[in-house]
Parts: sequence; C-alpha cells; structure tokens
Amino acid sequence: MLAAPINPSDINMIQGNYGLLPKLPAVGGNEGVGRVVAVGGSVTRLKPGDWVIPANAGLGDSVIQNAANSSVGQAVIQIAAARGLRTINVLRGRPDIQKVTDRLKDLGAEHVITEEDLRKPETADLLKDVPQPRLALNCVGGKSSTELLRHLAPGGTMVTYGGMAKQPVVASVGLLIFKDLKLRGFWLSQWKKDHSPAEFQALILTLCDLIGRGQLTAPACSEVPLQDYQRALESAGKPFMSSKQILTM
Amino acid sequence: MLAAPINPSDINMIQGNYGLLPKLPAVGGNEGVGRVVAVGGSVTRLKPGDWVIPANAGLGDSVIQNAANSSVGQAVIQIAAARGLRTINVLRGRPDIQKVTDRLKDLGAEHVITEEDLRKPETADLLKDVPQPRLALNCVGGKSSTELLRHLAPGGTMVTYGGMAKQPVVASVGLLIFKDLKLRGFWLSQWKKDHSPAEFQALILTLCDLIGRGQLTAPACSEVPLQDYQRALESAGKPFMSSKQILTM
Repeated sequence: MLAAPINPSDINMIQGNYGLLPKLPAVGGNEGVGRVVAVGGSVTRLKPGDWVIPANAGLGDSVIQNAANSSVGQAVIQIAAARGLRTINVLRGRPDIQKVTDRLKDLGAEHVITEEDLRKPETADLLKDVPQPRLALNCVGGKSSTELLRHLAPGGTMVTYGGMAKQPVVASVGLLIFKDLKLRGFWLSQWKKDHSPAEFQALILTLCDLIGRGQLTAPACSEVPLQDYQRALESAGKPFMSSKQILTM
Repeated sequence: MLAAPINPSDINMIQGNYGLLPKLPAVGGNEGVGRVVAVGGSVTRLKPGDWVIPANAGLGDSVIQNAANSSVGQAVIQIAAARGLRTINVLRGRPDIQKVTDRLKDLGAEHVITEEDLRKPETADLLKDVPQPRLALNCVGGKSSTELLRHLAPGGTMVTYGGMAKQPVVASVGLLIFKDLKLRGFWLSQWKKDHSPAEFQALILTLCDLIGRGQLTAPACSEVPLQDYQRALESAGKPFMSSKQILTM
C-alpha cells in the first residue's frame, strides 16, 4: 500500500455504525493505492511495480445535493456538469464560504447555497432559472434532508447515501402522498452485489474516461505519514475540513 | 345522494390539510351512494332509479400495516387474505382490544399486535412464523411508521397513504442505505391520473368480484340523518371509533 484516504465510511465502520462490520481484529479503511510486489504465474495483465487500486462511485435535468463540498459532492458536481446536468449545491455556512463557493463553481456547480439560505423563502426566486430537481442526493439527514425534499419536483426521488448529521431522515406525510416523492438509499457495496463485474468495470471506465478528459478531478488532499495517523484522524473529524486526509506508507 | 360516509380525508380537506383543495364555497366529502334522477338522451347504461357510486382502492408474501382497524385496514386484511397474502396488523392499544382482535382475525388477519407490543423485543419471536414483510402500509406516521420500517425485509417498501398521528415519517439513515428500504406515498387521485379509465374500471370490477364472493365486506357503519351531522362529525373525530359515520339523506 502506498497511500489510503480516511473516509467518513471508514470512521463509521470503526465506530460500529456501518452496514458491514468486519470480524475483529480488522484493518480499518477500504480505499487506497498499492504497488504490486509479486504476481502469480498465470497473471499477465499486472507486473511487479504496477500501481493498483481497490476500485470504487454513480445518476436526471437538475440535481440538488447537500454536503456539496464533500469528496462525493465535488464528484457529483463534475459528473453532472460533464453530462449536461445542472446542480443545486447545499452546504453548511462557514467562515470561508466565498472561497468554497468559487471552487465548486469552478468545478461546474450552477448554484451554491448554504443550509441557512435554503430555508429562506426568497431562495425560491434564486432557483427559478433551474428546472425543479427530480433527484436529490442526501449525505446529511435530519433537517437538511427535509429541506431537500421540499425542493424536489413532484414525483422526484431522494437518494440517501450518508448521515453526517447523525439524525434520521424526516419526511412529511403530505410530501409522500400528495407530491409523490420517493425515498431510498444507495450503498456501493449493495450496488456491486446487484450488478455484474462487467457493469462495475464499465462504471469505472466511464469515470476513468472523465478523469482522462480533465472533467473529473480529485478533491483537495493532505498527505500524512502513517506514523502521524492520530493527527490525520483528528483532522478528518474536524468540521469544515475541505481536505481529504491521505495516509502515506 | 342517498348516503355519504365521513372519511379522514374529508376532514383533512375541510381543515385544509389535503393535497387537493376545492374552491370555496365547496361541498365536503368525496364518497357516497346516489340514485339517478334523470338521464340524457344518449345515456343507455343508466336509467332513473338506478343506484350509482362515485367509485374508489390496491397490492406481495406478507404485508405489515398500521391503523389495521380502519376501513382501509380492514379492506387490506380481506383483499390480502383473498390473494393468499399473510398480514401483520398493528393498532393502538384500547379497552376493547380482544374484541377488535377477534373481528380482524375473522376477516383473515394472521397477526394482530398493538403498537406497544410491536416495540417489545419478544415480538420478533411471535412473528417468526411469517416471512418478513416486503410491503408496509402506513396510515399513521411518526413512531408507528418508524416501527414498520424496522420490521420490513431488506429491500422492502413502505407505502404511506395517511398520517393520522399528524407526525412526519422518520426513517433512520442506516435502514435506507444498508437495508435498502424504499419509501413512497399512495394517493388514489394521483393513481387515477396515472392510469386509464379502463384500468380503474378493472380495479373496481376486481373489488366487486371479491364483494360478490363474500371475501370483502364493508366496515361497521352507523347511519346518522343529515340534520344530525354535528353528532356524526363528533363521533368521526373520537379515538378508537370502530364505526364509520354514514350521513343519510
């Protein structure tokens, strides 16, 4: 292993809050880049020295998402922009909001709005130039997810893939019945089980193609030597941390 | 009009809590039985004296539902039983719980459980003989809907068609992501818009067929003369009212 990021799902797994818990003792973390040390006699596509990844990522008119500055959020902005989809991006108010807004707009974000502004009635005017989103991507839960539902078009779907606020998703009965909104979850591990290796490979190749064309870039990263893992974990847990902690080995 | 029931959706519409609000002044209520007074020259299928209804109901292994003693709940029990589906029926604890349980079991209910018992760990043992439900029907919202979600099989769907508790649906992020649960609503008015008149007719004929075979019966009703509408409204608003109030004209 050369380098491995600290992702929220890794922290959740270590805390026992994840859908899949390894038998203890276990290695924390699920992603990274490694170098091939040796290969078996029948392996022809890899040779010692090659870099390899245990691979991992997935989408309507306009999309609304929260946690827009997260690694997934930034990927959504770029993939949507590459496909001609317009994005409404919600994030928590923070000291460097203008800087973050500028960066997300550089990535292709159409609107960048704080959670607080999203609740204001005048925001509806601001969003009038974008068709009402038929897809919402929720990585937060709690009040933030309720607000995403309120902005969805009739018949729209909210996909929950994270719960950073550690609060459940709250959906008004009226929105479910009268606005025909649909709620579901997304879990890459489940997606892989439900799809063939060929489909997963096609997905990865699509992403590689976007990367090759410069349409999909990695989020800001901070490299931290493995022996300083405690510092990396502390940083990964800080609010408004716009940099992914990468442990290097 | 000969007779018209007071349904929860009528009360909601009068209170302004419904997805479709008529222009005022308006007639309250949406169902009933009428007698044809006169017909136009081109009408051949109806004649004066015929009884007519402004018609209005739909379903997979086992089904769990709350508000099981409501009119819809009783219909669900019977339709499910006629189709060979097993039902887990949840209702609020009440003084006459044994009487209500006996009546629902007579209609074909497999399990009848109070909201309070559903939350107890030992209930899981009680329900072991039934396959985990893949469909939940929620007419209550709040804690009751959270409990239905907890009992759904992985990949299952909860359909919300009412919110008697006047509380939103609360879904844990973990259940959405790791258990792949899906939430949506059902509104007959929307169903009618999305389906052809022929499909709606087929639905009604299916129900008529069940009624004809004695597999679907009406809930207990209390006939109240129209001039006593205030008494009927009071009764319709009482908790644990097992009898549908029918205004007769």
